[in-house]
Amino acid sequence: MREQYQEQLDGLAAGLADMCDQTAVALDTATRALLDCDLPLAEEVISDDVKVDELRADVEEKAFELLALQAPVATDLRIVVSAIHVATDIERMGDLALHVAQAARRRHPDPVLPEEVQPYFAEMGRVGVMLARKAGEVIRTRNLVAAEELESDDDAMDDLHRHMFTVMMDRHWPHGVAAAVDVTLLARFYERYADHAVAVARRIVYVVTGQMPGPLAV
Amino acid sequence: MREQYQEQLDGLAAGLADMCDQTAVALDTATRALLDCDLPLAEEVISDDVKVDELRADVEEKAFELLALQAPVATDLRIVVSAIHVATDIERMGDLALHVAQAARRRHPDPVLPEEVQPYFAEMGRVGVMLARKAGEVIRTRNLVAAEELESDDDAMDDLHRHMFTVMMDRHWPHGVAAAVDVTLLARFYERYADHAVAVARRIVYVVTGQMPGPLAV
Repeated sequence: MREQYQEQLDGLAAGLADMCDQTAVALDTATRALLDCDLPLAEEVISDDVKVDELRADVEEKAFELLALQAPVATDLRIVVSAIHVATDIERMGDLALHVAQAARRRHPDPVLPEEVQPYFAEMGRVGVMLARKAGEVIRTRNLVAAEELESDDDAMDDLHRHMFTVMMDRHWPHGVAAAVDVTLLARFYERYADHAVAVARRIVYVVTGQMPGPLAV
Repeated sequence: MREQYQEQLDGLAAGLADMCDQTAVALDTATRALLDCDLPLAEEVISDDVKVDELRADVEEKAFELLALQAPVATDLRIVVSAIHVATDIERMGDLALHVAQAARRRHPDPVLPEEVQPYFAEMGRVGVMLARKAGEVIRTRNLVAAEELESDDDAMDDLHRHMFTVMMDRHWPHGVAAAVDVTLLARFYERYADHAVAVARRIVYVVTGQMPGPLAV
């Protein structure tokens, strides 16, 4: 009985880590679709999003069952409640990767992004994917050092995000308003994706230490 | 004992409804700050955001205690788990109102919005505030008719949001890229605020019926 209970708790973490891997793949693929104007890749992300949603439903159902049947307390209860929060964050990461893919599809066969900003988005994609993978690792290993690293990794994303605004605000931005609107929204999607990955890591810190790290910038 | 338990469950709903009211006030005030370039109003929203965060922490603590001490099952468990979700959504609504206020503060004493789009933002503010208030009412009364109304009310927000893009994409948009970037982000904040209010209502439908309504557009 006790053993099965422990397996159920571990199963929650495994499901959440799988969700992270799935959303890392989604952002990686969406970024390639965006940069290469690759419609089949965009479609792949769009149709695969349901998998993240299913994983999330599965995690939530397991968490609900655990609460109903095992009535966990103390640390175990923290694990289950945190799993519910974390599942929400990761599902949102999947949605944001989906939004990137939808932008690529919407403008196809035209590129969404002016060539000038493409390297920044390649980098935002790389940082985002790395954050998602690291969040998955933190869920699996409860490595608090890695959890803390996510916060500084996220600073790189914030810098890239801010830099996009500097580039667009330059009075010589030659790409017009439509491109600026797309860049604004896409940069926001990447930045929010990273914020959610950081939120995941912070929840794991809370599970392990019983304390939430300091306030999150929003 | 049973009576106290019921009071605790009711207390969760009361806390969440208060959060809705608080975020309705925040968006109303932030919208006025935005449209009237009113710095003190913007500062008010910014300093008041902590109240929403505190209400949320309070709801979460109560939910955690209920789970630990009462081990609720069935509908009661659904109520508690949903409270955790709903608190997250409403806190995010507060953050989005905060972002609106921060935009007003950042550009002060200049207006953030070109005069031409101000009426649309006044309307987005009105719809957003109405949605938050209605979400609070749904939490208090579990009125499923009102809950369903939120979905169609949200269509009005989506229309306004889409219309902003049409206005900016017009090749005669005379306000430049910087204004377009601001309009893009602000319109997104209002739209996301409304999405979260709808998500709150949907959770209450789930609490009452045991079924989530159909998939939410993201």
